[in-house]
Formats: sequence, structure tokens, C-alpha cells
Amino acid sequence: MTTAPSACPSASASAAVSSGARTLADPDTPFAVVDVHRVRRNVARLRARADRLGVVLRPHVKTAKSLDAAALLHDGSPGPVTVSTLAEAEAFAAAGYRDLTYAVGIEPHKVPRVVALVRRGVTLRVLLDSTEQATFVAAAAREAGVALPAQIEIDCDGHRGGLRPDAPGLPGIGRILHDAGCLDGVLTHAGESYHCHTAEEQRAAARNERDAAVAAAERLRAAGLPVPTVSVGSTPTAHAADDLTGVTELRAGNYVFFDLVMAGLGVCELDDLALSVVVTVIGHRPEYGWIVTDGGWMAMSRDRGTSAQPQDQGYGLVTDLDGTLIPDVVMTAASQEHGTLTARNGAVLPELPIGTRLRVLPNHACATAAQHQGYQVVDGAHGPAASAPVITAYWPRVTGW
Amino acid sequence: MTTAPSACPSASASAAVSSGARTLADPDTPFAVVDVHRVRRNVARLRARADRLGVVLRPHVKTAKSLDAAALLHDGSPGPVTVSTLAEAEAFAAAGYRDLTYAVGIEPHKVPRVVALVRRGVTLRVLLDSTEQATFVAAAAREAGVALPAQIEIDCDGHRGGLRPDAPGLPGIGRILHDAGCLDGVLTHAGESYHCHTAEEQRAAARNERDAAVAAAERLRAAGLPVPTVSVGSTPTAHAADDLTGVTELRAGNYVFFDLVMAGLGVCELDDLALSVVVTVIGHRPEYGWIVTDGGWMAMSRDRGTSAQPQDQGYGLVTDLDGTLIPDVVMTAASQEHGTLTARNGAVLPELPIGTRLRVLPNHACATAAQHQGYQVVDGAHGPAASAPVITAYWPRVTGW
Repeated sequence: MTTAPSACPSASASAAVSSGARTLADPDTPFAVVDVHRVRRNVARLRARADRLGVVLRPHVKTAKSLDAAALLHDGSPGPVTVSTLAEAEAFAAAGYRDLTYAVGIEPHKVPRVVALVRRGVTLRVLLDSTEQATFVAAAAREAGVALPAQIEIDCDGHRGGLRPDAPGLPGIGRILHDAGCLDGVLTHAGESYHCHTAEEQRAAARNERDAAVAAAERLRAAGLPVPTVSVGSTPTAHAADDLTGVTELRAGNYVFFDLVMAGLGVCELDDLALSVVVTVIGHRPEYGWIVTDGGWMAMSRDRGTSAQPQDQGYGLVTDLDGTLIPDVVMTAASQEHGTLTARNGAVLPELPIGTRLRVLPNHACATAAQHQGYQVVDGAHGPAASAPVITAYWPRVTGW
Repeated sequence: MTTAPSACPSASASAAVSSGARTLADPDTPFAVVDVHRVRRNVARLRARADRLGVVLRPHVKTAKSLDAAALLHDGSPGPVTVSTLAEAEAFAAAGYRDLTYAVGIEPHKVPRVVALVRRGVTLRVLLDSTEQATFVAAAAREAGVALPAQIEIDCDGHRGGLRPDAPGLPGIGRILHDAGCLDGVLTHAGESYHCHTAEEQRAAARNERDAAVAAAERLRAAGLPVPTVSVGSTPTAHAADDLTGVTELRAGNYVFFDLVMAGLGVCELDDLALSVVVTVIGHRPEYGWIVTDGGWMAMSRDRGTSAQPQDQGYGLVTDLDGTLIPDVVMTAASQEHGTLTARNGAVLPELPIGTRLRVLPNHACATAAQHQGYQVVDGAHGPAASAPVITAYWPRVTGW
């Protein structure tokens, strides 16, 4: 996002020119927009669940990567969060956050940045699943003379990394960490829950996630090792879990924005989606049934998560600038700076002149958000506006690694 | 890309510690790397073709989005280029480029930024394919009292935007532009050539692209309208064209880096690929046959362009840190910050300890490059190094719109 020019061209209509308030009609497209009202609602919903389940909520900030968005997670205080990069850890530490988990397996080259943060008073938990990693983390903690809290990653569903709860090596890794004062706990992530298409499957995935984490913790405790933290979570399981006995904390990230994949799973409704991309109509191909926009994969990402769902949503569903869904209009193709909209289910494409602004709801909020340097913020609590929604803030993103 | 810490952790091996030279073993992973030797070779190849074909080469800078990379396109001079965003146009104009084509359909809101560049002495051609657009461009040129050169987009293969060369409205659009002093020419892009899997199909696509552009220009000329520019190009057709009679300029962008999609089409060889992503091994799942790295879709993009080719290359092919291919090891899965490597064709996964650095060759260079703020640059002309390749420069990217 570059700064938009302050004046509107004479040939275009903009509600902002007369009133002076900047609206979604003003910045040059494409750009990302966040509805803070929906963010607040999504955040409150999971917060209430975590309170009811009696666990600490440690949101993953990898989706929004925004200090402004994060300020809504814990009522403005710098509470516990999960990060996906050391760049996020450093940005959040600089903003006063002191309780972080870096939920990607640690490797030796990244240890100095971890140590530097710990020396600044940040509790930064690292993640690992091998004797090799436990050994260099323990050595680094001893050498630096600081505590380097580490969590052992547990694999609950064959999704990615981690040790199975019954892995023979688990107690040994726990012992190496414990002896260096590093053992903080266990962590698991039900990544396969993104493929659970019914509420019952999601509840089962949540139970399985809990069971795996608790079983791993119990094995370590049976070996005489204290396990303060038992961490679970994914957006689907966090919203499905009915019992987290033995778990101490819950993680989820996507829920702050939600997206079409989550709506397709039934975890949220379409009107919970807080992130969209504003695009402009730049052409028409009536002979093909296409409207062409200036929002391509550079603005939306190449993510096609709903292609694996019963209802494929292409590159996204289309709304007007107010956020009202235009039924059965889908972004079906993307090149770098071009998006193609088509009608489905026999719908007729609306007549949208060149210059018309629309919003596109993404498949995968984490991926779409990552295509932007920040977000224009609107507050949907005000309801549909007479003119284009007013921009109330700009939230920059943390970028890079 | 954040700035990497200057010191390496004691637990990791880095060739740079003793010598003082920064190498690919130094910045924290993941990061993008460009082999400038390959860029030079790729640039020289198409440059020689354009010279032989007797056309101006107007490279598309949307792939690298780098002033440093662009400096190699025209032997260091700010020659003609194509841009995909006004942010690129502004960055290149600020660096002294005066001959730009903005190859995405214009809409009214973007006109003031175009006018501002033109007033700074930049020739910035805009693209359009409708009477509506021609009318507001002509009006804006008259109102601003400047020339706003415009090209009419021609559709040669049903790929995206444009008018068919025989479209009834073509001369009328040309007339509106001509009367306002705006008619610069016609432009077409054989986007469907990315699906031409044989050299003969690519030659046919190049002939078709030329024929469409020339036919459109001839129709305008027959209506008494001068057409100075006849612009064609895509990376496959630019490398396949054997006759560009009637064409004045050739565009291509991807060729600067090339990628697995282009290699799959036979447009280049694997050792022409100039862009890769350096990643680090962070885990092993021998029970699944997986090596886990810290390079996920955030570093590679979600682009899976080769999935539509006879040989699907997953999220990318894997090389060692020197760039030597590790046969039959493929990045087969990606989450945000995790990549999964697996072996295919019965190959055995190599033993790669935690901390091992690898490079991943991407499906689609434009998309992968877009995930990064810039490139670490190495010079492969030096041949395989005894230690990790030395970093010779950092090239920042132009971001946003």
C-alpha cells in the first residue's frame, strides 16, 4: 500500500470529496480492509469460550500481524500471544509484550535472536521435537546463563511436525530440557481439523488434540518432569472443544479475521469475515461473462483453500463497497494484477461500470493479509452507510522474518 | 526480510565467521536469493532475440520489481520498461526512467497519479479496451492539458482483457483517443501461451499474438488513425517468435528469473532459474518420509503453477546451498512457516541435520518474489564455492500499489 493521493480524479465519484472524511472510495485499489466491529465480535466469542473452558487464551498473531489488531485480543493489555516469526516476536516485544510462544521449530541459527529477547526480559518459548534441538537449546541456555523455556511439539494428527505422545524419545528430550531449566511444556496443533467438515468431526478433532497433549504431559510427569504448560489449538478445534481438562492454554489465529475456508467448515458465518480486499472494475468481457478487476493474486494471494471444500469459492466471493454480498458472483480467475469475476448458478452478472469498487472475501485470511503492508480499517458497527464506509484507522503489518 | 544478526550462534556452522564475508549461511531463513549471473544470461538471451527480430525490448519489471535488477536490462541505462502498478511507475520514474507502459486497464481513480507522472516528464502509456475508458482518458488529457498516451488492449487468445482485432468498437475507440492526441498504439499479451507445452504450440501462439496485434493496428490505420506502437509479448512467445514483422516492441517479464513453470514448458533449463528461497531444516518425520523446513507458503507463495503441467513439482525443487539440485527431493506441502520435503521416484531422502540450509526453486517467480521485501544476491559465475556462496548485494523490491 502506498499512500493514496489526496484528491480524487474529476471523472470519478467519491463520497469523500465533499465531507472531508476518508472512505473506502479514496485509497487507490487494490487494498486490504478490516472491519474492526467484526474483529471485536470474533475476539469476544473465543474469549468467552476460553473463559468458560477455564484456559488461558494465547492468540496466534500470524494472521493479522498487527499490533493494533492485537490490542483488541486482551482488552488493550499486552497479554500472551503466539508468533510465527522472530520478526513478530521482536515487534511485539518492542511494544511491551512479555509472554510469547514462537510456534515454529527452532534451529541453531535463530538462537541468538531468541537469547537477545530473553535478555530484554521477554519470556519467549521455543518449540522443538528432537533430541538434537533439545541439546542445542540446553547448551545455549547454559552458555548464555538465561532460561530458554522450550515446549515439546506433539503430533496429534499427522499434520506436520511433532512427536507422537507415545514416542520413545519423549521423556529423554524432556529430561535434557529439564536439566537445563528449559522444560516449559508441550504444544500441539490439530492442523488436520481444517479438513473436518462437520461439527461432530471438529469436536472429535478437539478431543483428540486435547488427549494427545495431555497424554504427552502425563508421560513426562510420570518420568518425574514438571510440565507447567499444556497448549492446544487451531481455529476449528478452539471453537469446537467442549472439555479441555488438563490443558492450560488455547491457541488460535485465523479467528480474528475468519475467511471463506472457515465459513465453509461452519466455524463462522459469512458476515463474520473481517478481512476483504477492495478492488475496482477495469473491464468487461460480456462475450465470456466476465467482469475484470484490478485485484489479482498479488492482492488476494494464490490461496485456493476452498477448492478442497464441497463449495469451491474460487478466489473469493464478491460484495459491494458496503460489504453486502452480491449473490453468486465469484472471483474465478487471477493473474498478477487482474481478477476475473463470473456469475454462477444461473445468476446474471450485475451491470458494474468501469471504476465501480467492490470487496472480495478471501479463501484464507492469513495468506491474503500477507499480500499487503497494512489494512484500512472501517467500523461496521455503524451499519450500512449512505456513502462509502469511513476509514477510521490504518493498521500496519509486521513483515519479513 | 529483517536485517540478520551479525553473529552466528555457537551451535551452528557458518563459513562467514572466519572470513568476514557474508554468505548464504548468514541471514536468518527463509530469504530470497537471486543469482545475478543467471539474470545476466537470461537478459542477454532475450536481448539478442529482440535485436535479431528487429524490435524494441520493453521488459516487464513486475517479476523482480527491483531497480537493481532493472539496471541489467538495458546495459545500465533507464530504457523502456513495462510496469504492473503505479507504485512501480513512480519508483522507476524517481530513478530516471522516462519510457513506461502501465499494462493494466486504467480506471478513473488512478488518472491523477498518471497525470502527475506525465507532468514530471515521464511518458507513461495507459491501457484500455472500452469506449468508456477512452472517453475519460481523453477528457483527462484535455483537462490537464497534457498528452496521455494510451494503448488499446487487444485480445489474441481469450486470456483476459482486450478487444478482438475485429471488434466493431475498435476504430471508434481509436478515434476518441486520436482526437485527444492520446492514441499511441495497440498491445496484446498471449497469456494462454503458458499452457502451450510444445515448441511448435509456442511458435503458433507467437504467430497468433503477432497477427492479432498487427491486424488491429491495420484496422485502425485503415480508419485513418496513426498507430506508432504495436506491442506484443509473454515470456513463452517472446522466446518462440520467429517473425515479428509489423510489431514494434516485445514485452516479457518472467524471463529475468525464470521458474519451474517455464522450465516445464521448455522455455528454459533448470539451471537458468535465477530465483530461489533459502530455507533451513527444522525437523524430521522419518515415519512419514518428511523433512520439515522453515520455508512455508509465506516464503514460497501458494502458487502451484506446475500442478497443471505433466510434471507436477509441488511447491518447488530442492537444491543444496550452492544451487546443486538434489534429485527427486520435492517440497510437497506448505503451511504458513513450514515446508515439507519428500522424495519421489523411489529416491531416498538425504540425511540433513537440523540447521542444514537448502534452496527451493519456485513454481512461479513472480509470486514467490512477491513474498519478500528484497533479494540477497550471489554471483554464480564464480562456480561452486568451497564454503557457502558469498552475498554480493541486497536488492530491495518495490512493494504495494
